[in-house]
Amino acid sequence: MPLLVVGSVALDSIETPTQTRENVLGGSAVYFSYTASYFTPVRLVGAVGDDWPREHTELLRSRNIDTGGLHVVRGARTFRWRGKYLADMNTRETVGVELNAMAQFEPVLPEEFRRSKFLFLANGSTEIQLKVLDQCTGATLRVADTMDLWIRSQPAELAELLRRIDALVLNDSEARLLTGDPNLVRAGHKVRELGPRFVVIKKGEHGAMFFSKHETYVLPAYPTPRVVDPTGAGDSFAGGMMGYLAEQGNFEPKTLKEAMAYGILAASFTVEDFSLDRLRKIERADLEHRMEEYRRMLSF
Amino acid sequence: MPLLVVGSVALDSIETPTQTRENVLGGSAVYFSYTASYFTPVRLVGAVGDDWPREHTELLRSRNIDTGGLHVVRGARTFRWRGKYLADMNTRETVGVELNAMAQFEPVLPEEFRRSKFLFLANGSTEIQLKVLDQCTGATLRVADTMDLWIRSQPAELAELLRRIDALVLNDSEARLLTGDPNLVRAGHKVRELGPRFVVIKKGEHGAMFFSKHETYVLPAYPTPRVVDPTGAGDSFAGGMMGYLAEQGNFEPKTLKEAMAYGILAASFTVEDFSLDRLRKIERADLEHRMEEYRRMLSF
Repeated sequence: MPLLVVGSVALDSIETPTQTRENVLGGSAVYFSYTASYFTPVRLVGAVGDDWPREHTELLRSRNIDTGGLHVVRGARTFRWRGKYLADMNTRETVGVELNAMAQFEPVLPEEFRRSKFLFLANGSTEIQLKVLDQCTGATLRVADTMDLWIRSQPAELAELLRRIDALVLNDSEARLLTGDPNLVRAGHKVRELGPRFVVIKKGEHGAMFFSKHETYVLPAYPTPRVVDPTGAGDSFAGGMMGYLAEQGNFEPKTLKEAMAYGILAASFTVEDFSLDRLRKIERADLEHRMEEYRRMLSF
Repeated sequence: MPLLVVGSVALDSIETPTQTRENVLGGSAVYFSYTASYFTPVRLVGAVGDDWPREHTELLRSRNIDTGGLHVVRGARTFRWRGKYLADMNTRETVGVELNAMAQFEPVLPEEFRRSKFLFLANGSTEIQLKVLDQCTGATLRVADTMDLWIRSQPAELAELLRRIDALVLNDSEARLLTGDPNLVRAGHKVRELGPRFVVIKKGEHGAMFFSKHETYVLPAYPTPRVVDPTGAGDSFAGGMMGYLAEQGNFEPKTLKEAMAYGILAASFTVEDFSLDRLRKIERADLEHRMEEYRRMLSF
């Protein structure tokens, strides 16, 4: 089943304790859609400038990602993010952000895209996320990501969003910020009480937690010894999760838990190199192989 | 099979964001032995002062813990630790330590204790841990805990200890300190290469990781919404793990993984109240019930 994603498309410059990369392919919607494409056709909506390398669009198209919703804003540059990871590889500093094409981004979805049943609102302005929701009135699973910036700057819009989506995906510090509760188990349920039917808290190297009315669970991250660049891990997690749900065409509890696991494994590949470099080298079979290991790891 | 533990016996004063307790029963060997007693008979070695409340000894004895190795140091006070937890309940500040009876503690083990097959050297001076090892020459499973203080102050003794034990249990920041490697998967194996056959890294609210030559795995913490006081969680984890191994009488890979899970669940009860207050209210059946939930949580 086609999966629609709206979010950022970026050129990232990244510094880790041992390596740097300049202007590599990134952005929440890119990591999400590339990962989801292992499972299902993807429809990507975003904006880039006229400096956007055509090869990036071709790469996405080669993966069964429909880029018909990728707008090129004339006279603008592509969104740029510059970040630095500290020695622990978990603490990240944003060194610079240039919104560029994203600043003028007003999503107008192609007619066909609006009929998508599975929708992911990747990290971005809550106001824009609401405008996308307005256009996708027939979606059966509407999931959003958010971040501290929007929690602080658009609380009223976020409250509305939470009432209109089926699920929210956010990280641990964001869940604490949104609820004021330091205990993640309580925080997860408090977010759920704001509207979504289920909530996923991403814990980076520690895995992810799931909250619905009747279920609370934690799945650990896959223990990879090779963490080169954590950028995009959260978006890949969401892409793996949503991609699997769209492939299965349902979001029953059993499917949701499997989807969480696929998200975790997709993210474990993403961090093993910069940009999409590791993901580009794997096939669905590699995900399935790691899934077997992961199931074995959690069996006793 | 009887399980020997040597470690601290303390009176703790604890401040959390919402509550405080003064001079409550604590210490690594106390948390360890009380937890292990759900599984197997325990032999406790430690030192207290003459201010030690007799009721604490009686409580331990009531649980099939042999306190024949608990020395009362005349003229000394019991070891005291005073700590404070910040709002996130994970960051802990030691406000004060009085070694008292522990300063003069030279473990001389009762003859019967020396023949214990399962031995746990709870957190304490590495020098003392080595002296215990010298006395327990027939142990088949020798496991130690350590902390940043000993990693920094007794590196030569710790290197010797690591060559003489079967396993080391330590927390994530200690594993990073000991190896200089920020990646926990690599750090765990690097600790293992220093001598122990297996290594367990405790990650607090994020669970625990296991490392042997052929296995690497992570198990998440049990998600409890009620974290009142994390003191003793790591010692309870070790007590549950070692208690189960001693009960089973082996440390095959399958038993080890089950033991890790029991350790995680025991710790999840410990944090639900101050001191041993939560553990005192549970029975083995409560551990088994939570184990069923935990297995279900990790199945998909």
